[in-house]
Amino acid sequence: MFSNKNILIAQGGGPTNVINMSLVSIIKEEKKLKSSVLGSLNGVRGIINNKFKNLNKISENDLKVISQTPGAALGSTRDKPDNKYCLEIFKVLKRKKINKFYYIGGNDSSDSLRIISEHANKTGYKLQCIHIPKTIDNDLVSNDHTPGFGSAAKYVAQLFSGINYDVKSLPGVYIGVVMGRHAGFLTASSALLRQNNNDGPHLIYLPEFSFSYQSFLEDIKKTYIRHGKCIIAVSEGIQNKNKKLVSQEISKTKEYDAHGNIQLSGSGSLGDFLAQQIKSKLKLPRVRADTLGYPQRSFLGSTSEVDQKEAFEIGKFAVKKALRVSYSFSAGIEERKILSKPYKVSFRINLLKDVAGQTKVMSKDFYNYKQNFITKKFINYALPLIGKNISKTKSII
Amino acid sequence: MFSNKNILIAQGGGPTNVINMSLVSIIKEEKKLKSSVLGSLNGVRGIINNKFKNLNKISENDLKVISQTPGAALGSTRDKPDNKYCLEIFKVLKRKKINKFYYIGGNDSSDSLRIISEHANKTGYKLQCIHIPKTIDNDLVSNDHTPGFGSAAKYVAQLFSGINYDVKSLPGVYIGVVMGRHAGFLTASSALLRQNNNDGPHLIYLPEFSFSYQSFLEDIKKTYIRHGKCIIAVSEGIQNKNKKLVSQEISKTKEYDAHGNIQLSGSGSLGDFLAQQIKSKLKLPRVRADTLGYPQRSFLGSTSEVDQKEAFEIGKFAVKKALRVSYSFSAGIEERKILSKPYKVSFRINLLKDVAGQTKVMSKDFYNYKQNFITKKFINYALPLIGKNISKTKSII
Repeated sequence: MFSNKNILIAQGGGPTNVINMSLVSIIKEEKKLKSSVLGSLNGVRGIINNKFKNLNKISENDLKVISQTPGAALGSTRDKPDNKYCLEIFKVLKRKKINKFYYIGGNDSSDSLRIISEHANKTGYKLQCIHIPKTIDNDLVSNDHTPGFGSAAKYVAQLFSGINYDVKSLPGVYIGVVMGRHAGFLTASSALLRQNNNDGPHLIYLPEFSFSYQSFLEDIKKTYIRHGKCIIAVSEGIQNKNKKLVSQEISKTKEYDAHGNIQLSGSGSLGDFLAQQIKSKLKLPRVRADTLGYPQRSFLGSTSEVDQKEAFEIGKFAVKKALRVSYSFSAGIEERKILSKPYKVSFRINLLKDVAGQTKVMSKDFYNYKQNFITKKFINYALPLIGKNISKTKSII
Repeated sequence: MFSNKNILIAQGGGPTNVINMSLVSIIKEEKKLKSSVLGSLNGVRGIINNKFKNLNKISENDLKVISQTPGAALGSTRDKPDNKYCLEIFKVLKRKKINKFYYIGGNDSSDSLRIISEHANKTGYKLQCIHIPKTIDNDLVSNDHTPGFGSAAKYVAQLFSGINYDVKSLPGVYIGVVMGRHAGFLTASSALLRQNNNDGPHLIYLPEFSFSYQSFLEDIKKTYIRHGKCIIAVSEGIQNKNKKLVSQEISKTKEYDAHGNIQLSGSGSLGDFLAQQIKSKLKLPRVRADTLGYPQRSFLGSTSEVDQKEAFEIGKFAVKKALRVSYSFSAGIEERKILSKPYKVSFRINLLKDVAGQTKVMSKDFYNYKQNFITKKFINYALPLIGKNISKTKSII
C-alpha cells in the first residue's frame, strides 16, 4: 500500500492507436485520488533529461481528444536503462518525491520497468512500478491479448477486405507485408473479414512457421489456377528453416545495404523481392506488393471501439489495484474461453518478471501449416477484438 | 432522345471506394424507368466475351451493401478498344438491342467510350454513350473534382495525420509515397488534416513541379534542424527537370528490372531509394519510407460521405440528362467558387471529346514551389471533399 500522492506516467516503445486511452484513464483515475500527476516526456528518457509535464492541468475536453489521438501523447523512446541510467532515474525520482510509476508499453518497456523495479528493491528506494500493456504485435505473455492489437488488426482486416475487392476487379497477384517481427497475430488478422473461399487473402505466411520459396511459389501457382487471382499476407518476420529472417537473407543481394542490420518496417524490400520472384519464376500478370508500414499502428479512423474501451479500462484497473497491493506488477487481460458469449474480458495482475521481455507467439491451433492459412479458432479468438463498426460488403462479379 | 429500354452498364480502369455508388444509382434510376439493365463484366471486355449480368434482379438491400463496397462490383478492365474490338462490341450490342451504354471510369475509360461512340456514329449504329467519371487521381479536365478523389484524399489525409503523431512520438524522417502518375492532387491531400506549422507533412513533392535531389536533401536538412523531425509526402510520379520519372531513373540501378517499364504502384522502390539517399547523405536517424499503395483506392472504412453522395448523385443526374439529350456525353462536376459557403456542387455535361484521355494537373496557385508545400487555396478547395466524419486529434508533447 502506497499513500504517496506524486505519481509519474510515461509511454515507451512503438505507439498504438489506443495507447493514449490508457494514459488518459490513469490521469483521470489518479485525479480522482487527488494525486499530483506528472508525465515524463519520451518515456524513461524524460526522467533523466528532466522533461516533465504537469498532467493535472489538462482540461477534461482535451483529455477526451488526446485519448482518441494515435501516437504516444507524451512521446516515446526505445531506451533500455542500464545501471548508470537507473542511478540517474532515481536521483530525479527522489528529488520529485515519486513513489509510483506507470509505464505504458510492450515487451521492451516492461523489461525497462523490471530493471528499474529491481534497482529500486536493491537500493531500498520505495517505488511501485506498474506496467500497462500495449502492443500491436499482441505478443505479451500471460495476456489473452494486448491493448493496441485490436485496432491494428481492424486496420489490417479492413485493408485486405478492400484489396480483395480491388483484385477481384482487376485480377492478379497481390502481396501485403504486415508488421510483427516474431509473432504472426497481426498478419493472421488479414483474413478476419473474409466472407467466402474465393476471397483473399488466400495464403498467409507467419514468422512462427518456416518459410520456403519453393512451397511459396507452388502455393501461389495452385491458388492462381484455382481462383484466377492470389492475395497473400506475409509477415515482415518470416524465417527460413534455419530461423534466419528472409528480410536479412535478401539484404545480401542489395548493393546499398552497407550496415547489415536490415530494418523490417519502413522499407518495401521484402515485398518487392517476393513480387520479383513471382514475376520471374511464375510469369503471372499484375504482380503487386504493398508493405503496410507505420499506418498499421497509427492510422486515424479505424480504431476498434472494443480495443479503445479495454485500453481505458485496464488503466483504471491498474490504478485501483495499485492501491490494494504493495508490490510492482504488470496489468493484464485474463485468458478467456474463446467461444464463450457474449465476448467479455476481465483483468488480472502479473509479476513484472513473468511478462518482461518475453514473447508470445501464435499457438499451433491458430494456424494450419499445410494450408498456409489461419484456423476457425483464430477467427473466433480475434474477431471480437476488432469491434463491430465495420461496413458490410458485397460484389456482383 | 432515346426510348430504348435495354441499357448496359460497365466499369473501367482502377476502381475507387465509391465507383459502386455511381453503379447503384444508375441501376436504381433506370429501374424506375422500367429499363432492362444489363451489366457487362470487366468493362468493355465483358461485351466481347459475352459476360453479362441481369442487374434488375439484385435486391434493394444488396444494392445498398454493394454501393458501400470498394472495388468495381462488375469487375474492371484496362482494355482500350481498337477498330476490330469495336466491331466485336457492336455485334453484341446489336444482338442484345442495346442503345444506351453507361461507362463508369477515368481518363482511359472515357477515351474508350469516345472511340466506341465515334465508331457508332461512323457506322450509323444508334448508341448513346454516357461517361460517369471516377478517379482517385482527380485529373479529369472540365470537372471541378472527380468522384473517388474525396475518399482517397480522406484516406491519405488520415494516414498522414496518424503518421504525424507517430513520428512526434519517435522522431525521425518519414517518407510516404502517394499514388498519382501525372497529377499531384492526392499527394497534396496529405496535408489536409495538419493543424499547426510543426505538424507533418512538412514537405510535399508533386509530378507537376520538377524534382531535384539536391534541393530535396537540403529541404529535409533544414526541416530536420527546425522541427527535430521531417515528414515528407512524395508523389510516385515525381519527375526530374528533363521530365523523366525519378522511378524510371532509379530502375537502371536495379539488377532485377529487366523490362525497363517500371511500374509505379505495387512496389516500394522509389520510397526505399529516397530513404537510402537521406540515410547515406544526411546521416539522419530513423529514416523510414512507406509506399501507400492500393489501399489508397480500396481501403474499407475511410470513405468520404461527401464523395459517396456525389458519386451517387452524378449517376442519377446522368440517367435523367440522358433522357433529355440525344447525344453522347460525359457527366461532370461544375467548377465552383472555392470560398463560397456552404460547400455545394452542381452537375453539368461535357462532350466526350472534351474530356477523353486528357489530364488535369494541379494549378500553380495550389502549390508553393519554393516552400515545397501546398497553398491555403488548395486546402480550401480539397478539405470539403473529404467530409466531416474525422476524429479530432491532440497531443501533449
